[in-house]
Amino acid sequence: MDGFPERLASVAAEIEARLDALLPTGDAVADAMRWGTLGGGKRLRGFLVVESAALFDVPRDRALNAAAAVECLHAYSLVHDDLPCMDDDDLRRGRPTVHRQWDEATAVLAGDALQTEAFAILAAPATHPSGDVRAALVAALAAASGQKGMVGGQAMDIAAETAGRALTLEEITALQALKTGALIRFSVEAGAILGEADEAARTALRDYADALGLAFQIRDDLLDVEGDEDLAGKALHKDAEAGKATFVSLLGVEGARSQAEALVCQAVSHMSQFREAARPLVEAARFTLARQS
Amino acid sequence: MDGFPERLASVAAEIEARLDALLPTGDAVADAMRWGTLGGGKRLRGFLVVESAALFDVPRDRALNAAAAVECLHAYSLVHDDLPCMDDDDLRRGRPTVHRQWDEATAVLAGDALQTEAFAILAAPATHPSGDVRAALVAALAAASGQKGMVGGQAMDIAAETAGRALTLEEITALQALKTGALIRFSVEAGAILGEADEAARTALRDYADALGLAFQIRDDLLDVEGDEDLAGKALHKDAEAGKATFVSLLGVEGARSQAEALVCQAVSHMSQFREAARPLVEAARFTLARQS
Repeated sequence: MDGFPERLASVAAEIEARLDALLPTGDAVADAMRWGTLGGGKRLRGFLVVESAALFDVPRDRALNAAAAVECLHAYSLVHDDLPCMDDDDLRRGRPTVHRQWDEATAVLAGDALQTEAFAILAAPATHPSGDVRAALVAALAAASGQKGMVGGQAMDIAAETAGRALTLEEITALQALKTGALIRFSVEAGAILGEADEAARTALRDYADALGLAFQIRDDLLDVEGDEDLAGKALHKDAEAGKATFVSLLGVEGARSQAEALVCQAVSHMSQFREAARPLVEAARFTLARQS
Repeated sequence: MDGFPERLASVAAEIEARLDALLPTGDAVADAMRWGTLGGGKRLRGFLVVESAALFDVPRDRALNAAAAVECLHAYSLVHDDLPCMDDDDLRRGRPTVHRQWDEATAVLAGDALQTEAFAILAAPATHPSGDVRAALVAALAAASGQKGMVGGQAMDIAAETAGRALTLEEITALQALKTGALIRFSVEAGAILGEADEAARTALRDYADALGLAFQIRDDLLDVEGDEDLAGKALHKDAEAGKATFVSLLGVEGARSQAEALVCQAVSHMSQFREAARPLVEAARFTLARQS
């Protein structure tokens, strides 16, 4: 597809506008929620929601709500991850992190409220007229982000670091499937839930998402080694400095790259049943490898 | 009612068993979630869910799920409130707080996952066969706990402390209506949502909850001054030491006590339409004044 970056940017702008409309105003926590969510980010997760929903002719307005919800959830995880007791990062998307711009208490509360906001948006009637669909979205996001999903992956990461033990390839694959993969899978599934898609379509989308999520993480590890800090807008080379096992330390740069390429091919193949309609998702998978941030 | 403390203890035991069944196991974060939730607490919020649901003949099994959800949400707020960057408490219910027993990162993640768990439980089909009811529960809990609810109240509290300014009675009433009141109101409303109650019943329950919530907070302030640390299981006299405005500092001990008594009478009067069936809620309101912890 010619113009994929333009399409991504255009959907990102729609999601940004929706977030701006949905996020609260009025106090420091509200300002910090906006700081942690607005003004940056590729909105890849939100894009996946919008484009998977488009496969099933879900009205754009509904899809944008679900996209905003997953971006709130993602932003909450970044605000908390950046805290001094976690990754202790000062910079995110080229700007001070929330606890640097305000303080730790505000960052904890803003992250907490962003998580709440994600569920509030999914449960709101504007997201879908059917309560069953809204409850299914809430249940799926909770499964993806809780102790058996994203948070579970973060806990495995911390446990490995505390033990000072480098993970095996199998362990790191399992960890990343939770830490970043679960939310990417939710993003792709959300379109199928909104569109009340049949089981065959859901399975294909899940398989696509799992391959995409892993490719995405491998590219992250490659960028940590090869990337440009100015483009990334955050500190790089942290994993190598911390002596952490990554896909790159385990497979080498070339091995990691070819593994990511194989996963993108897999992801693309799972989209064949949707034919031309899946073009944006196919391009999104290819973009995972090309991205510089 | 003879035996109210026994009834409260018996419902608390049912809620404890449900939490034990619902909470995850398997890693440090799961253990920390259990530590922060199980093994103590009066379960007043869960009790309010169960007893308000009983007014509308909601099956006990469903009410216990919603009660477990509100206790997970409450536990998350305590785990995060106790963090060094917030209230910096070492003791909770007579035991080390989560960040003292584990570390700050685990406490942040366990609190995060407990919030997720609350929404997961409400969205699960076991909580109610109707998706509309489940989505309504999620929306109501999100409204009660987010930036316009509990977290908003905490933010007001921090802002006042940072500014070093003592709040007026009006301000402290508004703050507490959010910080502790909103979740108590949700607990009482949850029964009405589960029971698909009519608007008149909901209004009466909301009014009951608002009076009860404020009385509860005034009693908390009185206990902070007069209470026994061993019974409370946490550090007391913190507000006076911090020079914080409380209902007691603003109204005096006697004034605060009579204000709380008036609020309990109000709460009780709102229950008249339910007659004898509301006896547990009436007794719960009276208990707020009598409690020693």
